[in-house]
Amino acid sequence: MTDKTSTAPIPLTVLGTGAMGAALVRAWLAAGHPVTVWNRTPARAEALAADGATVAASAAEAVAANRLVIACLLDDASVGEALDGTDLTGRDLVNLTTGTPAEGRARATWAQERGARFLAGGIMAVPPMIGGPGSGAYVFYSGSPALFEEHGTTLAVPAGTRYVGEDAGFAALYDVALLSAMSGMFAGIAHAFALIRPEDIAPKDFAPLLVSWLGAMSGSAHLAAEQLESGDYGKDVVSNLAMQVAGNATLLRTAEEQGVSAELLRPYAALLERWLAEGHGEEDTTGAVELLDLRRGAAG
Amino acid sequence: MTDKTSTAPIPLTVLGTGAMGAALVRAWLAAGHPVTVWNRTPARAEALAADGATVAASAAEAVAANRLVIACLLDDASVGEALDGTDLTGRDLVNLTTGTPAEGRARATWAQERGARFLAGGIMAVPPMIGGPGSGAYVFYSGSPALFEEHGTTLAVPAGTRYVGEDAGFAALYDVALLSAMSGMFAGIAHAFALIRPEDIAPKDFAPLLVSWLGAMSGSAHLAAEQLESGDYGKDVVSNLAMQVAGNATLLRTAEEQGVSAELLRPYAALLERWLAEGHGEEDTTGAVELLDLRRGAAG
Ligand SMILES: NC(=O)c1ccc[n+]([C@@H]2O[C@H](COP(=O)([O-])OP(=O)(O)OC[C@H]3O[C@@H](n4cnc5c(N)ncnc54)[C@H](OP(=O)(O)O)[C@@H]3O)[C@@H](O)[C@H]2O)c1
Ligand SMILES: NC(=O)c1ccc[n+]([C@@H]2O[C@H](COP(=O)([O-])OP(=O)(O)OC[C@H]3O[C@@H](n4cnc5c(N)ncnc54)[C@H](OP(=O)(O)O)[C@@H]3O)[C@@H](O)[C@H]2O)c1
Repeated sequence: MTDKTSTAPIPLTVLGTGAMGAALVRAWLAAGHPVTVWNRTPARAEALAADGATVAASAAEAVAANRLVIACLLDDASVGEALDGTDLTGRDLVNLTTGTPAEGRARATWAQERGARFLAGGIMAVPPMIGGPGSGAYVFYSGSPALFEEHGTTLAVPAGTRYVGEDAGFAALYDVALLSAMSGMFAGIAHAFALIRPEDIAPKDFAPLLVSWLGAMSGSAHLAAEQLESGDYGKDVVSNLAMQVAGNATLLRTAEEQGVSAELLRPYAALLERWLAEGHGEEDTTGAVELLDLRRGAAG
Repeated sequence: MTDKTSTAPIPLTVLGTGAMGAALVRAWLAAGHPVTVWNRTPARAEALAADGATVAASAAEAVAANRLVIACLLDDASVGEALDGTDLTGRDLVNLTTGTPAEGRARATWAQERGARFLAGGIMAVPPMIGGPGSGAYVFYSGSPALFEEHGTTLAVPAGTRYVGEDAGFAALYDVALLSAMSGMFAGIAHAFALIRPEDIAPKDFAPLLVSWLGAMSGSAHLAAEQLESGDYGKDVVSNLAMQVAGNATLLRTAEEQGVSAELLRPYAALLERWLAEGHGEEDTTGAVELLDLRRGAAG
């Protein structure tokens, strides 16, 4: 039942041709999709004409040009500003602008009220990874399943796709959860480099040890996930909370010895101590996640 | 020039048969090494007799039994207590007890003053990984190069070995640096799980995304190492400090929305903001490591 028309790359519109938007546009153009672009500062959109993009004079014109409209702007407020006064009736709006889960949900309602189907996206990549097969780049999508089903192939052109549910806030939630975990890891890496800096140790010799250690130890998230699902934090414990707290004392003393601020280590050490004080010494550290729940007191 | 005598597994002594000490003893016994053991609480040492260990009545007797003496005790103070009154003359003391770099250096001097060669070790593994080939377990060693050269093969029986220099504090420094980085990563993972907990998202489905994301992103430590060595934090920047700081605002707002304490995220976010305020917005985040140096003000 496949004919040439149905498999031809579909035309689409991209609003916002900053670093990320431009990378997306180039990937779609390279795959043969006709792309209409608009950018608040026209020069940045016009730079893509040489690659084959059609430059629209206004956001309204760009939205009118194609059913599939991608927004990749600074933040959620700029999406509202850019789309203000455009006719979204019958459009498939895919918002690849970073925001919070609540912003994603509110933007979905806003788009639906204007007659559009809506999909939120959270891009897990930097621009140089876009369009590079095997770069590992992917985008979390959530929102309209029908939109995702219809345009999944087109959306998969610049980066891999992971649809994570109908809740338009989930793309942002998964995105932010991974970025938050990464932020913690980067804090740890910064502290590690600070510790070796005063010594005659080459960071380049140290980095491979760090990378393979973190890679191996990140696997403990699988066990943590099982424990969180069962609520049994005492299962398969290899290094219990009491030992971790004792070990943290060595980390903190070493920081002091090396003249390194322990500011990045202290909050997690303190969290584990609080969980220990609640009597969980023989369990794994996983349960300390409960202490991060600000509604804990209210519910209990 | 190889004869049976020179390749036969050499006898050794292990002081401390707690969880880690016992795992080490079993690995050496399994490889055919005669092992003499001592433990403060005798029952824990006696449990290893069934595996073929010889139980010594005192630490002094255990030290007298073999030239190669391994200590795997609670902390540095317990090493001092256990070895107090033993004759270390001519011994090769390998201390696998976790401590700080300064403790490692002081213990090396202490051992040398008593006529022993000294090697410090930092074990990058939990007991179940010991002796399992391919488990990835290894030990950082630093101190006497002659000792390491002579006993390297024996030391490689329970876990891989990485000799990191003559400075007896380096084994602990590498150990603590990796554990500190891991602590940051675990803090990040805890925050990520806390974010998804209020939602209908299975931790077990989320964990693989988390693990592969952290694995991919840990690779940025290689670039950070290059930047730290060159002092040029502006080289090969893909996502600059100003963008990271803007992104952190989304992470913090999302935590608030989800009812999750941002205590684990805030210190690194604040550190990056301070570095931004010092004018490094166009550079990579790497340079913020300098702010962790408590001697910075004093030196400048
Ligand atoms: N770059 C990355 O590494 C990366 C990674 C993942 C996700 N993202 C996300 O992708 C989105 C775009 O990022 P980027 O890297 O392309 O940023 P960028 O290079 O700074 O571009 C920002 C874009 O937003 C536009 N814009 C800002 N305020 C606007 C407003 N009020 N009305 C209309 N347009 C406005 C800018 O237009 P002007 O040209 O007129 O200023 C520009 O097109 C962001 O949400 C970002 O979080 C980026
Ligand atoms: N387990 C791990 O996952 C792990 C990983 C890496 C490194 N390590 C390090 O390995 C070392 C041993 O850890 P472990 O897991 O075997 O701990 P453990 O099971 O708690 O055993 C501690 C050992 O230290 C002895 N000890 C404590 N205080 C003493 C004292 N004052 N004098 C003499 N002996 C004393 C204990 O003797 P009693 O039996 O008489 O109490 C026991 O043999 C620690 O430095 C630890 O940081 C452990």
